[in-house]
Amino acid sequence: MSASRIIYGVQPVLEALRSAKTDRVYIARDGGPQTRRIVDAAQQSGAKLVRVAAKELDQRAGTANHQGVVADLDRSEVEFVEVETILDRADAAGEAALVLLLDGIQDPQNLGAILRSAHALGAHGVVIPKNRAATVTPAVIRASSGAALHVPIARVTNLKHALDRLAEAGVWSAAAVMDGQPAFKARLDGPLALVIGSEGNGVKPSLAQRCDHKLTVPIARDFDSLNASVAAGILLYEVVRQRLDKPALGS
Amino acid sequence: MSASRIIYGVQPVLEALRSAKTDRVYIARDGGPQTRRIVDAAQQSGAKLVRVAAKELDQRAGTANHQGVVADLDRSEVEFVEVETILDRADAAGEAALVLLLDGIQDPQNLGAILRSAHALGAHGVVIPKNRAATVTPAVIRASSGAALHVPIARVTNLKHALDRLAEAGVWSAAAVMDGQPAFKARLDGPLALVIGSEGNGVKPSLAQRCDHKLTVPIARDFDSLNASVAAGILLYEVVRQRLDKPALGS
Repeated sequence: MSASRIIYGVQPVLEALRSAKTDRVYIARDGGPQTRRIVDAAQQSGAKLVRVAAKELDQRAGTANHQGVVADLDRSEVEFVEVETILDRADAAGEAALVLLLDGIQDPQNLGAILRSAHALGAHGVVIPKNRAATVTPAVIRASSGAALHVPIARVTNLKHALDRLAEAGVWSAAAVMDGQPAFKARLDGPLALVIGSEGNGVKPSLAQRCDHKLTVPIARDFDSLNASVAAGILLYEVVRQRLDKPALGS
Repeated sequence: MSASRIIYGVQPVLEALRSAKTDRVYIARDGGPQTRRIVDAAQQSGAKLVRVAAKELDQRAGTANHQGVVADLDRSEVEFVEVETILDRADAAGEAALVLLLDGIQDPQNLGAILRSAHALGAHGVVIPKNRAATVTPAVIRASSGAALHVPIARVTNLKHALDRLAEAGVWSAAAVMDGQPAFKARLDGPLALVIGSEGNGVKPSLAQRCDHKLTVPIARDFDSLNASVAAGILLYEVVRQRLDKPALGS
């Protein structure tokens, strides 16, 4: 078993069980009350539960930081979808589409945190580029607290083409930039693709230029801006706020 | 030179120079255009600039990920302030106080990201507990992109007492919890202390109970919530939004 197909920790393994991405879970023989949820979830999903010594878990996980639970992933990467699948999901839910495009996020921790926020805050999917960017590895799945197994992800050769296809489907676009309008001044309650740039360089100008909105999180100090995953979380929140808080917007 | 007093990377070293926290900077002999800003900042701050081989930088930083710049910090930890100093800073700026209280953040990456957001989004200071929490190490300073050298930080034995002192000074309090009111429904434009909980356990109930507001970032999916640093960034943004967007609130 290659270490790259291993995940560990209560929350990531629970998410893997719920999304049927694992059929074999290793659990500490002397597991505490928190492993009860794992046992229940494994029974529900029909996954095989193997009780082993804590030492074997350390070896399988390659760390002692596994909270008594390790699982084999059925695949070492998630299955990617088409951009259209993301739009279909929004349609099926009767919701205005909310899609996140990531223009070259390099750091697996950041990618994981962004996927976690995207899932939690109701994005219907995430689009990532095939080249010059982190892809969805088990490390990313762990950093996402398992969310990467739930949120549909499209991996494309060209983000501009993805943006064009979204525009054809009536989806507006908004790029996170340093000198745009404050996010709360833009109307973001319709179908929307949010474009988040890489840690060092932001959204490529040629991509930002194609977007209907250029959004900025207002910064109070003369400082170099926010962490990419924090900025993504804030902009997703702003969309959620506008969608939930419509009466206040119209009043 | 102990590795714990070393920082590296263009942005952290620039911030250290600007806040006079270093007087010695090592720079790659064949440094690219990005080190130009370091040379300028070192000249302005009067720090000594030492040109060395890239290999020596690798050794000093303990990693090759230093972007051609390494600096010695004058101190291995930042100087902590009193809670009153944070309030004085808000007064001096003529702004409603915005203070962040961190109830047991464990992970240095999270603490760094939160300090970065606090500084960038205009908090006047951050309060952290002395026990059972990460403190401000060079690793945290790096993760904060240098913001930890700018934002005043109070380190206290008892967060409840700090909250009491803030309340006496007329500062409202709001705890981030899982089942509170949506953050955008609460009025957060007055003097405010935001209380953010630890990664695993959230804000301690005994602390949340004392707060005037219990705030929640509305979550769309049945999922285990947001990363602590993303949640902190979102709530800080919501405060900024309400303060900047007052006409819309009152209309």
